[in-house]
Amino acid sequence: MDIGFVGLGNMGRGMARSLLSAGHRVVVWNRSEAPAAELVRDGATRAATPADAAASGLVLSVLADDAAVEGVTLGADGVLAGLPSGGVHVSMSTISVALAERLTRAHGDAGQSLVAAPVFGRPDAAASAQLVVVAAGPARALERARAALEVVSRKLVVLGDEPAQANAVKLAGNYLVACAIEALAESSAFLAKSGVAPATFIELMTSTLFASPVYQSYGAILTERRFSPAGFKLPLGLKDVRLVLQAAERVAAPLPFASVLRDQLLSAIARGHGDLDWSAIALVAEENAGVPPRDPARSR
Amino acid sequence: MDIGFVGLGNMGRGMARSLLSAGHRVVVWNRSEAPAAELVRDGATRAATPADAAASGLVLSVLADDAAVEGVTLGADGVLAGLPSGGVHVSMSTISVALAERLTRAHGDAGQSLVAAPVFGRPDAAASAQLVVVAAGPARALERARAALEVVSRKLVVLGDEPAQANAVKLAGNYLVACAIEALAESSAFLAKSGVAPATFIELMTSTLFASPVYQSYGAILTERRFSPAGFKLPLGLKDVRLVLQAAERVAAPLPFASVLRDQLLSAIARGHGDLDWSAIALVAEENAGVPPRDPARSR
Amino acid sequence: MDIGFVGLGNMGRGMARSLLSAGHRVVVWNRSEAPAAELVRDGATRAATPADAAASGLVLSVLADDAAVEGVTLGADGVLAGLPSGGVHVSMSTISVALAERLTRAHGDAGQSLVAAPVFGRPDAAASAQLVVVAAGPARALERARAALEVVSRKLVVLGDEPAQANAVKLAGNYLVACAIEALAESSAFLAKSGVAPATFIELMTSTLFASPVYQSYGAILTERRFSPAGFKLPLGLKDVRLVLQAAERVAAPLPFASVLRDQLLSAIARGHGDLDWSAIALVAEENAGVPPRDPARSR
Amino acid sequence: MDIGFVGLGNMGRGMARSLLSAGHRVVVWNRSEAPAAELVRDGATRAATPADAAASGLVLSVLADDAAVEGVTLGADGVLAGLPSGGVHVSMSTISVALAERLTRAHGDAGQSLVAAPVFGRPDAAASAQLVVVAAGPARALERARAALEVVSRKLVVLGDEPAQANAVKLAGNYLVACAIEALAESSAFLAKSGVAPATFIELMTSTLFASPVYQSYGAILTERRFSPAGFKLPLGLKDVRLVLQAAERVAAPLPFASVLRDQLLSAIARGHGDLDWSAIALVAEENAGVPPRDPARSR
Repeated sequence: MDIGFVGLGNMGRGMARSLLSAGHRVVVWNRSEAPAAELVRDGATRAATPADAAASGLVLSVLADDAAVEGVTLGADGVLAGLPSGGVHVSMSTISVALAERLTRAHGDAGQSLVAAPVFGRPDAAASAQLVVVAAGPARALERARAALEVVSRKLVVLGDEPAQANAVKLAGNYLVACAIEALAESSAFLAKSGVAPATFIELMTSTLFASPVYQSYGAILTERRFSPAGFKLPLGLKDVRLVLQAAERVAAPLPFASVLRDQLLSAIARGHGDLDWSAIALVAEENAGVPPRDPARSR
Repeated sequence: MDIGFVGLGNMGRGMARSLLSAGHRVVVWNRSEAPAAELVRDGATRAATPADAAASGLVLSVLADDAAVEGVTLGADGVLAGLPSGGVHVSMSTISVALAERLTRAHGDAGQSLVAAPVFGRPDAAASAQLVVVAAGPARALERARAALEVVSRKLVVLGDEPAQANAVKLAGNYLVACAIEALAESSAFLAKSGVAPATFIELMTSTLFASPVYQSYGAILTERRFSPAGFKLPLGLKDVRLVLQAAERVAAPLPFASVLRDQLLSAIARGHGDLDWSAIALVAEENAGVPPRDPARSR
Repeated sequence: MDIGFVGLGNMGRGMARSLLSAGHRVVVWNRSEAPAAELVRDGATRAATPADAAASGLVLSVLADDAAVEGVTLGADGVLAGLPSGGVHVSMSTISVALAERLTRAHGDAGQSLVAAPVFGRPDAAASAQLVVVAAGPARALERARAALEVVSRKLVVLGDEPAQANAVKLAGNYLVACAIEALAESSAFLAKSGVAPATFIELMTSTLFASPVYQSYGAILTERRFSPAGFKLPLGLKDVRLVLQAAERVAAPLPFASVLRDQLLSAIARGHGDLDWSAIALVAEENAGVPPRDPARSR
Repeated sequence: MDIGFVGLGNMGRGMARSLLSAGHRVVVWNRSEAPAAELVRDGATRAATPADAAASGLVLSVLADDAAVEGVTLGADGVLAGLPSGGVHVSMSTISVALAERLTRAHGDAGQSLVAAPVFGRPDAAASAQLVVVAAGPARALERARAALEVVSRKLVVLGDEPAQANAVKLAGNYLVACAIEALAESSAFLAKSGVAPATFIELMTSTLFASPVYQSYGAILTERRFSPAGFKLPLGLKDVRLVLQAAERVAAPLPFASVLRDQLLSAIARGHGDLDWSAIALVAEENAGVPPRDPARSR
């Protein structure tokens, strides 16, 4: 199948490569040179613009945020301009519900379809086609996108015909992750002040009641204080919490835990932790509780 | 080994039976008649008072709350009065850190030892010796209690010599569970308002990133709206949150998520949901977000 | 002096009239017909566009929100287009800090100046020239605007040369008001559940420790349950809380009370109270606490 | 009239003196020597025990907390033991609703009456008979206490016949004060980060919309950073917030602002500010927002 692919960052690169491996003809576009050149070496064709990448009628995009998606889709020589009538844009980025709704209308007005298909998983899962994909959009468009989505994922969940619903689920999922981190962070600060090593508690919980990927990976990060280099930087975490707060505000749903998270993330940035992983909200919990700073030797 | 056992409720009964099955001689005491009679049929001996149950020098207690533990331990004919010098009281109840410290002093003054060994697990885990036990206390006392604790558990974690530390860990663990419920509840209310079936979201999350016992069991309860009969009633949930708030206040550790939980649990009680399972804080999230009440046929 | 005036809503009308009374020549523009016609009867001249209103070189604008200010200022035939080089735009609306900064740059790029001069006070204070005005902007521009600002106010506070600072102060002031309402609402719900008439408490507090305009006027609204007709509708209150949260997020300042307010306002809207005054967050406090709904006869 | 008076701290001393000045015969008791001796010089008679002070049948008590009130009332040689049948104990301390209810029952069982009459005002108001008193209790007991209460107050508000209601009102009033401080603190930190001097904002607000004693006195403390010597120490503020949270929990009323306050006060203590005035929660707001510490010269 001919597939356009826009956005070759940490996530997109692995996904595009999976599509090539599965035998699809992939036309790639990326803002910066090097990643596109790399994919061309792997067998892809390079497009001069997002519009060109969209010419085949099926294009996937994997970008960093609302601004990038908006620019690449609605800008000059964007996906919207290049996609033929009847074509399908599969937006796999984590974006706001509001932008998903705008894109749905814009593509619809042009006789095209938007499928929202955000993913759960880190770059290594993208590279090994182990992502979890949540997709929503018109049934026929989803059918057209299905083969490509199955190639990059180990699990594909289809929701319904409103693309924005997939984005809402993605935001809710990230929110659950943020809540888990904060809960671990608060418990750990409380126990540290009570004379119990948080590592013991985390090991116990994540090997029993909470034996799941999220608790285990963030539990390990907290225990080892591996806040740098950041897997997911604090300001990105704040952006995700902001997105879920905005999406919930549109439907008048209060999210009291999200309000707490927002304050902790903001305070982490205010205290100069903005370059650390978002799990460094644990430092806020510690500082607020007066946990003595760790021996640097132990903090590595 | 001769072992005293005080408190034959839903949890204690299964644990006492496991001790009998393992060949120990168990002397039981329970406030009400029937459970004690049942254990006697299973081979236990019945004690007239907690003091009598403690006469062998090793006694385990599994009771509902601070008041019960205080009464059975420090009251007339209580464990403290009956335990010989050098004896060990293994307190397995979920109690406050403050009471654990009082009991530690009281037993110490009497030449006895307290081991705190609260458990994670529900009655079925107690019945099948699948509990997770977190123990703390003086090393020699712990050694004496170890055989009994291993009989009732699938995992025994030993912390250190301060009994109250085990109670702090138990409270922190329950706190993690409460946070997970609230996070699921808020996300579900947000998604319901956004037109996404929460069940789809919960199924997705608990089979991937959050594939762990707590998320799966509470995820199923939320999806099936199985708030009644209550596995763990709302006021007990409020009690647990109060205990962790009090314990954290003693060491000056703020717990902002716990403050949210307290308010949601209180509001659930104020709205008349006090007889439901504590996961019914999901109803508060729904009502606060204006999610229309479910069709009763769908609520079963 | 020749003064342009854009925006003749509840607030602007009274201010424009004060300028006329003080002997200024006022050129007015308003989106809808009637209010402009009214002011013309009072002696004003009518402009065809905001640009025309700005032609004299000093123009005041009093509009509802960011969108209105942006449209009237930066849109076709807007203030920016009509203001001569060296001219001054005095923006008196409650807008975001972000928009204030954008307008500052836009006017600066055109060789013009922005003065931000938001006001505290209700329509009756606007009508009687009793507003409190907080102004910031370049010194010369402020000097040019001063006479007009003094005409409409009983107190004029000048901050400094960054216009956005005046907007930040206005948002912080509204935030204090929102906090006062929520504090009164929570206390009242608690006392109602405790068998004490909230009116007694409010009367006591607002005649002693809290004897100030805000507490007295909102105390009376709460006591008399005068939530409709709305003096300031709930969605506007939510907008103000959102603006202060956004402004504080830009400078990484957590505002935990604002997060609570946001949730209460959202929940009020979700429960169908969106047409009431923003002080109707008192209904959320009552419903969350299970205060029985009032007898309609007593609610008047 | 013969009046017993128990508790000659900062508050009680001035009140007892006002009673003497008004011509009453006052029998005083205080735990420590010096204050009692001082009052004797002013014309009081000294009692050997609280019971003796209560012998006249009307006794006022003004003490620091629940423990002190419990000890002095229910302990050996306490007020309860000394008060004749039909006698009245006027409890003017800030205590828990729960203790007020216990004292009500205890006095009732002894054929005596409790009047709760907590006060608003600082030591200087106590010294100059300018307190605001909120009283509740059986009508006949209130009548008997009225003359004494009027002597020490500028305003006496009578609620009803349940003493604990007066304590609930006192806790709610202190809660309003705490909320005002936090609102000022958050706004100030936000403005400081935005480049606006908080002092300017506070001066503006407390001279207009919030021109009331509480905002003016705490506004001045914040502006001048007069956190030491403490007028009301942080741990006492935490105690008051705890009391209102407990009282509200008894009637199932959530108080989300109180939860925030609790966390801020705890964090202030955890950061080592426990000896400062409770308005030093402003330091928590500043530190959480990353406001640079003030020049010590300006911090006086």
